[in-house]
Amino acid sequence: MKTIAILGSTGSIGRQALDIIRAFPDKLKVVALTANKNTRLLEAQLKQFQPEMFYSSAKADIDYRGKFLSMEEIACHAEVDFVIVATVGKAGLSSTLAALQAGKTVALASKEVLAMAGEIVVREANLHKAKILPIDSEHSAIWQCLQGEKNKPRKLFLTASGGPFYRYSQSQLAQVTPEQALQHPVWKMGRKVTIDSATLMNKGLEVIEAHWLFSFPFDSIEVLIHPQSIVHSMVEFADGSLKAQLSCPDMRLPIQYALSYPQRWSNSELPRLDWSKINTLNFEPVDYRRFPCLKLAVDAGKSGGTYPAVLCAADEVAVELFLSHRIRFTDIPKIVQKTLEQHQNIPKPSLEEILAADAWAREYATRHSLDYCPLSGRAIQE
Amino acid sequence: MKTIAILGSTGSIGRQALDIIRAFPDKLKVVALTANKNTRLLEAQLKQFQPEMFYSSAKADIDYRGKFLSMEEIACHAEVDFVIVATVGKAGLSSTLAALQAGKTVALASKEVLAMAGEIVVREANLHKAKILPIDSEHSAIWQCLQGEKNKPRKLFLTASGGPFYRYSQSQLAQVTPEQALQHPVWKMGRKVTIDSATLMNKGLEVIEAHWLFSFPFDSIEVLIHPQSIVHSMVEFADGSLKAQLSCPDMRLPIQYALSYPQRWSNSELPRLDWSKINTLNFEPVDYRRFPCLKLAVDAGKSGGTYPAVLCAADEVAVELFLSHRIRFTDIPKIVQKTLEQHQNIPKPSLEEILAADAWAREYATRHSLDYCPLSGRAIQE
Repeated sequence: MKTIAILGSTGSIGRQALDIIRAFPDKLKVVALTANKNTRLLEAQLKQFQPEMFYSSAKADIDYRGKFLSMEEIACHAEVDFVIVATVGKAGLSSTLAALQAGKTVALASKEVLAMAGEIVVREANLHKAKILPIDSEHSAIWQCLQGEKNKPRKLFLTASGGPFYRYSQSQLAQVTPEQALQHPVWKMGRKVTIDSATLMNKGLEVIEAHWLFSFPFDSIEVLIHPQSIVHSMVEFADGSLKAQLSCPDMRLPIQYALSYPQRWSNSELPRLDWSKINTLNFEPVDYRRFPCLKLAVDAGKSGGTYPAVLCAADEVAVELFLSHRIRFTDIPKIVQKTLEQHQNIPKPSLEEILAADAWAREYATRHSLDYCPLSGRAIQE
Repeated sequence: MKTIAILGSTGSIGRQALDIIRAFPDKLKVVALTANKNTRLLEAQLKQFQPEMFYSSAKADIDYRGKFLSMEEIACHAEVDFVIVATVGKAGLSSTLAALQAGKTVALASKEVLAMAGEIVVREANLHKAKILPIDSEHSAIWQCLQGEKNKPRKLFLTASGGPFYRYSQSQLAQVTPEQALQHPVWKMGRKVTIDSATLMNKGLEVIEAHWLFSFPFDSIEVLIHPQSIVHSMVEFADGSLKAQLSCPDMRLPIQYALSYPQRWSNSELPRLDWSKINTLNFEPVDYRRFPCLKLAVDAGKSGGTYPAVLCAADEVAVELFLSHRIRFTDIPKIVQKTLEQHQNIPKPSLEEILAADAWAREYATRHSLDYCPLSGRAIQE
């Protein structure tokens, strides 16, 4: 019986993780749930799964008799084997480190944890012989393709659906509304990730994650546009052979794989690919020019230090401004770029330096967004 | 240093195996070569690779001072670690068994060995703890995809280019000449395999091989038409995840993988996929109706016993008749079917019973081909 803590149980990944746990009551047991503000859903989850521990940023609103602990306390608690980090933004960072330092297996859905602090996170995992398992579809695909392989691969291909606007011109992109951007053609995800997916920032963060998860050089990680989202990523080996992992686009599969690894479990609720309906899989090299967030992210990853944390923080601010109709879709990369340009990088930063860079970037991006975003302060419809 | 015997060194696979061995002189060493009638090429190969042993069906024509031994003697010789069986038709069967009984690792390129006598071959391999490694692209793909997986997969998808005539109507198929059929759109192979590839008999034999190699039920092996021949096969696991193996269509890759396994070796002579040029991969379920050889083969495999041996023998006769312009392309399945219908199956046959069924089928197919092939005895152009 694997005992599981879910950090961020009311988000999209958290809810789907609970779906998987519900399907395997003899193998998986929830012992802790945490959430930010969705207290109604958290309360319902607590009543259904009856975990020993919980956390909510709005404790007073929760009617549940379990033990109330901080996310960090839960992450390293003796009762917990397996920590699913499904928080948004930097919220999961210190809990991830606490879990790894306690030797727990951490399944990472949060992109920011590795993007912001990959070097520290990987170092702590190695130091404490703790495992980091990916649960987004691309890294899970690569991880699956690497099983049983003895030699370091030559290249990783991260696939990207391209999001809803991949064929849009620059001027069409400038007119994109939050409502349009929240309609992803393939994946149902949280709001922040959906916007990041439309700007391809998401893919850039995944490149940084892949770098850290698989200790792989940036120059050997390539992004391929694959609109059908069936091939979730590919690995090229030294002999020129590639392996690809394919499935219906459904996050429950990578979540279940992280939980069942190294086994695979039959689950009739998971969809199967129907080859009488799939007749074409398309691939094309990504266009960095129209989607500057991707290049900004990869460059920040290559530069390292505190740059990736600044990238994540500025992006979080910019996405929030876009979602509240205060800047254009095409202003997101401008804010991120400006913030990165103004940042004084710190190589090999400590966690405190990363968090300070994050705070600086949030403040800078918020304060200066008015200067260079012509629509800032006004609703985009005006 | 791996010591290698190649049975059938002058054929397409044999020559490509020598290309790989030449590229890794510190890892691989040829100790025996055998060929049927291409004495000039065999002599040149012997002079270049200087193996201790050789065999040719035309010994007198060969000027070489190595030890002349039978194929069976070579296959189980103490100096040999690794036997590549790249013979055509049933020629490799008894040598494969000799190699397995001596505990050698056998890399199988011959489809007929497993198709004719899969049950016996697999039993001998298990009994003597000898390994059978596939070196055709489809089974190599499946084998690669299975690496590191702990649970039996749910389904195997064998891909098929469909050959040069996949879009032909029944009446167009009836007019196909041997010259057209020998022009395969993707793969450069021997004559027999190329015709089998055009009738899809080849794919049927591969289904039978996959059944024995991976001890997998026929009903869970599916054939998908994939004209680009980049995805070489796929495996579906219990959780709905699939792995595919991809590469340029080049037989040297599966040959090298069998030789390097479980490692992968960098080889600059092997081509790499160029994703700026591949933009579409197509898939469709196979049409059994227009390509009856596929169904005949799968049905013979399911029935088991001596049926698959009869299938192989009748096909060899029919392909030969077609190549010599004596029957139509569409007569090949008719001859095979008629021979199978007339055969009295022997369940769980001995090797002798398999060879007797083979001899019977050859004779029957040859003798009766005149009866039901309207063009038999005349050149197709008349």
